[in-house]
Amino acid sequence: MPSTPAPVGASRPGRPGYDQESVLALSVQVFNRHGYDATSMGMLAGELGVSKSAIYHHVQSKEHLLRLALDEALVPLEALTEDDSIRTGPVAERLEHMLRATVRVLIDRQPYVTLLLRLRGNTDVERDALRRRRDIDVMAAELVGRAQQEGVLREDVDARTSTRLLFGMISSMAEWFRADGPVPAAQVEDLVVAMALDGLRARP
Amino acid sequence: MPSTPAPVGASRPGRPGYDQESVLALSVQVFNRHGYDATSMGMLAGELGVSKSAIYHHVQSKEHLLRLALDEALVPLEALTEDDSIRTGPVAERLEHMLRATVRVLIDRQPYVTLLLRLRGNTDVERDALRRRRDIDVMAAELVGRAQQEGVLREDVDARTSTRLLFGMISSMAEWFRADGPVPAAQVEDLVVAMALDGLRARP
Repeated sequence: MPSTPAPVGASRPGRPGYDQESVLALSVQVFNRHGYDATSMGMLAGELGVSKSAIYHHVQSKEHLLRLALDEALVPLEALTEDDSIRTGPVAERLEHMLRATVRVLIDRQPYVTLLLRLRGNTDVERDALRRRRDIDVMAAELVGRAQQEGVLREDVDARTSTRLLFGMISSMAEWFRADGPVPAAQVEDLVVAMALDGLRARP
Repeated sequence: MPSTPAPVGASRPGRPGYDQESVLALSVQVFNRHGYDATSMGMLAGELGVSKSAIYHHVQSKEHLLRLALDEALVPLEALTEDDSIRTGPVAERLEHMLRATVRVLIDRQPYVTLLLRLRGNTDVERDALRRRRDIDVMAAELVGRAQQEGVLREDVDARTSTRLLFGMISSMAEWFRADGPVPAAQVEDLVVAMALDGLRARP
């Protein structure tokens, strides 16, 4: 059943209606603040200042809400595995595109990526999301392995571990990056690539 | 009131007693699996296969358990700020000591560090832990700043952002490092330092 978007902040002053997108945006904040397991539909209704039935107008259940929220992170990440600039061309460029694009998805979908990264796999929806995340990780590790074989990256380190450190560094941004912070997103993106490839050591 | 350690696995076969340390070790796993907010003392008792009163023999409350668990991560991390090999000597060595020691604490106290990293600050105990964590971060950022001033690290990047990427890369290990994995801890430690300082690019 498709949801009917309610007019946002239109119907009654001080008691804005929500569409599915804004229910999602607010719910993911509550999931991240208290943990998915600890969040009830009653808590979400309280935070949104609406009745539970107003939420059920947009989603069937808490798990449905989780699935929609995780898609906000997973769909753009999965799109990277289909992206021509990451799939074809010189491997050094493919790798750099992958790193930059991952940073951009993280910044663009920060709360949803945070939710994804904290999943523990307690429900079917979570386990399915973790499977999809693993497929993206495998593709990234293949790219890193290829870059090692072609002499772009150091060969003396395990590809899987290098991949985890690389993408772990990027994932950590979910916890500390602030869009209104002192360093703009584009500069953080450059720094991630610089650190990943050349480290932070000063060079003459 | 000091807790009296019960004999581990001694009293009744198939129904082992727990001392405070093992209550803590098992509780932190449940906190990490379901989130602190979602974990009740009843759930902990169920997971441990003991009565709630058996847990209250060792700790006063769930918050007390959280405080003890967070100390397992924070005390050794705070000790780094007092460590002579990190406080004195050439800044390049101090920085390398700090990176290596942080990796070692993370590996040694992995579940407790995971708990610390996922805190949201919903309770006084959590906010106090986040304050202590911030003090450690400030000390690390000062060291990175000093290393930049002395020409050890690149100067063209914001010290705070560099610090966050460096320690974010290390923190990410909480999510993926496995003591029984293919790469031994000492090798991961070397790789973290190598990547932080020189990146993963192959060099002639």
